[in-house]
Amino acid sequence: MRPSMVREMVAAAGVRPLLALSGGLPPAEAFPAEELAAAAARLLASGDPAVLQYSATEGDPILVELLAASLEAQAVPGQVLVTTGSQQALDLVGKVLLDPGDVAVVECPTYVGALRALAVYQPRFVSVPVDDDGMDTAALEALLVGGLRPKLCYLVPNFSNPSGATLSAPRRAHLARLSAEHGFLVVEDDPYGQLRFHGEHVAPVASHAGGDVLYLGSFSKVIAPGLRVGYAAVPDWLMRSMTLAKQATDLNSSSFSQRLVAELLAQDGWLDGHVTRLQDLYRRRATTLVDALDPRVRTRLPDGGMFLWGTVAVDALALTNACLARDVAIVPGTEFALEPGYERTVRLSFSTLSEDELRESATRMALALDDLA
Amino acid sequence: MRPSMVREMVAAAGVRPLLALSGGLPPAEAFPAEELAAAAARLLASGDPAVLQYSATEGDPILVELLAASLEAQAVPGQVLVTTGSQQALDLVGKVLLDPGDVAVVECPTYVGALRALAVYQPRFVSVPVDDDGMDTAALEALLVGGLRPKLCYLVPNFSNPSGATLSAPRRAHLARLSAEHGFLVVEDDPYGQLRFHGEHVAPVASHAGGDVLYLGSFSKVIAPGLRVGYAAVPDWLMRSMTLAKQATDLNSSSFSQRLVAELLAQDGWLDGHVTRLQDLYRRRATTLVDALDPRVRTRLPDGGMFLWGTVAVDALALTNACLARDVAIVPGTEFALEPGYERTVRLSFSTLSEDELRESATRMALALDDLA
Repeated sequence: MRPSMVREMVAAAGVRPLLALSGGLPPAEAFPAEELAAAAARLLASGDPAVLQYSATEGDPILVELLAASLEAQAVPGQVLVTTGSQQALDLVGKVLLDPGDVAVVECPTYVGALRALAVYQPRFVSVPVDDDGMDTAALEALLVGGLRPKLCYLVPNFSNPSGATLSAPRRAHLARLSAEHGFLVVEDDPYGQLRFHGEHVAPVASHAGGDVLYLGSFSKVIAPGLRVGYAAVPDWLMRSMTLAKQATDLNSSSFSQRLVAELLAQDGWLDGHVTRLQDLYRRRATTLVDALDPRVRTRLPDGGMFLWGTVAVDALALTNACLARDVAIVPGTEFALEPGYERTVRLSFSTLSEDELRESATRMALALDDLA
Repeated sequence: MRPSMVREMVAAAGVRPLLALSGGLPPAEAFPAEELAAAAARLLASGDPAVLQYSATEGDPILVELLAASLEAQAVPGQVLVTTGSQQALDLVGKVLLDPGDVAVVECPTYVGALRALAVYQPRFVSVPVDDDGMDTAALEALLVGGLRPKLCYLVPNFSNPSGATLSAPRRAHLARLSAEHGFLVVEDDPYGQLRFHGEHVAPVASHAGGDVLYLGSFSKVIAPGLRVGYAAVPDWLMRSMTLAKQATDLNSSSFSQRLVAELLAQDGWLDGHVTRLQDLYRRRATTLVDALDPRVRTRLPDGGMFLWGTVAVDALALTNACLARDVAIVPGTEFALEPGYERTVRLSFSTLSEDELRESATRMALALDDLA
C-alpha cells in the first residue's frame, strides 16, 4: 500500500503553516464544543455504566434506536451497525464480501480512502466515469451487459469526494435497478449529504425499492471527526457477517463517543439548526473560493459538501508543487483516479480555511500558475 | 465466523439480570468518571481543534509522547501506534503479516478474540499448551526444531485470558531467543499487566534484547473500555505497513478518547494511585471468589487480572447450562481451546461482581453442580 497523499498533506500542514485546500477537514469553528461539553458532563455524572463500558458490537442501543428512526424517515431499509467512522464500514464490507479477483466498481475519480480500504482484499477495480450528474450509470450498464459481474459498486452520491458531483435522481433509480438485476451490492457512502447548500435533496439510492444497498452515514462532517462515529444501514443478509467482522476488528466503537452523539441527536431540533449553520458556512466558503479563483482554474460551484473539482491547462502535479512552494496545499486529481486522463485536474477543499484565507490561496494559486507559464 | 459465546453471554446479561462471571468487564465503580468529566471539560473549553479533529493515524502526538516515555521506562523498544482497543492491533497484524496457510502459534487455552481477529486471514493455528508458568516454551521449541515455521506467536503474558497464568521470567527470555533464532514475531498482548495483586512484576518479553516483539497495551482495563484506546509498540520493520493498514481501516482512533487518556496520564501520580485502587479491588474479589467456590471447582488464585481458571468433574457445557438456569453466567473452557481436552474446564471472571454477588454466584454454582450430580 502507498500512503495517501491527502493524509501526507494533512501531516505536512501540521509541520509548517500551509494554506490547506487539501483535506476534507471541518474547521474548528464548526465543532459543537460547548454542546459536547454539556453532554459529556451529563453523561459522566449520570452514573450510567454503559457510557464507559464495552457496548454491543452493533452499537450503543440508545444511538442505534435514534439512527434507526432517522433511517426509517428516509425510507432507508436495513439494520444499524455503528462503525469507527464510515471508513471502517468500507474495511468491513471488503473483509466480508471480497475475495481476490472479485470485481469492485468505483467512480472515476473516487474517494481514495475507499480504494485503500478495499485494496487490502485484492479486488479487481473497474472504474466508471463521473460527469456533472455523478456516476454514468449507462456506462455501468454497458459493462454489465458486456458480462461484468461485480460484487459491489462503491460511490459517494452527494457532492462526491473528489468530483463534487451529485448523482441525479434518475441515475439513482437506475443504479438500484441494475443492482437488483445483476446481483451486486451498492455501497452508498454519504458523509456529506446533509451539507447541501444549493438545490433540492435527492432521495438515497438505498430508498429505491428492490436495490441491494449498504448505506453509510457519518457524524465526522456534521459533528466532529475526532469522535469517530459512523454508521451503516446493513441489508439483512449482510448484517450477521458484518457484525461478526466488526467484533473481530475492534469489538465495538467508542461507547463514550456514541453516547455523546446520541445526546446531541436527542435534543429536539439541535441537529437541524447545527446543520443549517454548517450549510451557510460552506456555501459562503465555496462561493468565495469559486469567485476568487483565477479563470485558468476551470471549476463549478457544487451543490454542497467540501470540494471543488478543477481543470487546469498545466500538469497538476507541477501545479501542486508550485503551490506548495507558495505554502498552499492542493491535491492533484491523479490521486483519485485509477485511469489516465486526470493529469490536469485538481481537488480543492473549501471547508477548512476562512474566506480571507481562501482568497489568499486563490491569489497564490494564480501566482503558481504564472510560475509555470 | 462463529459469534463469541463470551459476547453472547454479555449480551444476554443485558436482557435479564444474570450474575455474570462471564465477561472481562471492569465494574462501573472502577471507572474514573469524575476525573474524565474534569478532563473533558478542560479539553472542550481549551479551543484546541485537535481534540475533535482527525488525528494522525499513528495517534494524537500528546498521547504518543506519553506512551513512548512509558514504554521506554520499561525498556520496550518500537514505535507507538494507537489502536481502537488492543483488539484492533490483532486485526492489523493479521492483515499485514498473515497469508492463508501461514502458521500462527497461540496458547491453549487462548483469548478467543485473538483467534477471531486472526482467523479472517486464514492462518493455520498451532496450539502450545499453558501450565502454571504460562506457555510451555520448551514445547514450542520442540515444534520449531521439528520444522514449524510460524509467522507469529500470540500470547497474553500476564494473568492470561482465560488461564490466569503468568509467563515466568525464564520463559520470557526463552521465547525472545526463539523468536530471534527462528524468525517469527511475538505478539505480546498485555492488557492486564498493571492489575498485579500478588508477587513481583516480570519484565515484558519485548524488553529482552534480540527478540522481535509487537507489544500491545490497553487502557480498557485500567481506565475504561468504552474509550477504545489501546496501543502497540511496533518494531521498526512493521511500523509503516501497520500504520498504512490502520489508515485504511479507520483513519485514526477517536481523537477525543485519546486526549482524555492523555489528560489522565499527564496528571502526576494519578495513574499509579488509580491502579493501586484497582489492584486492591481485584485482589479482594479474586480472594472472595476462590474462598467461596465449592471444592468441586478446583482452581487457584492468580497473581492478577480478572480471571480464574477452574477444573470440574462434570461436562463444562452442561455446568454452564445448569448455572444459566440459576441465572449465573460462566464460560466453558472449550470456548478458548482449539484442541480437545478442555471439556471439564471453565473460566470465571471475578472482575464485574461485588463480593456479595461473587459469594452468591459460588453458592448457585454449587447448587448447579448438585443439579448435575
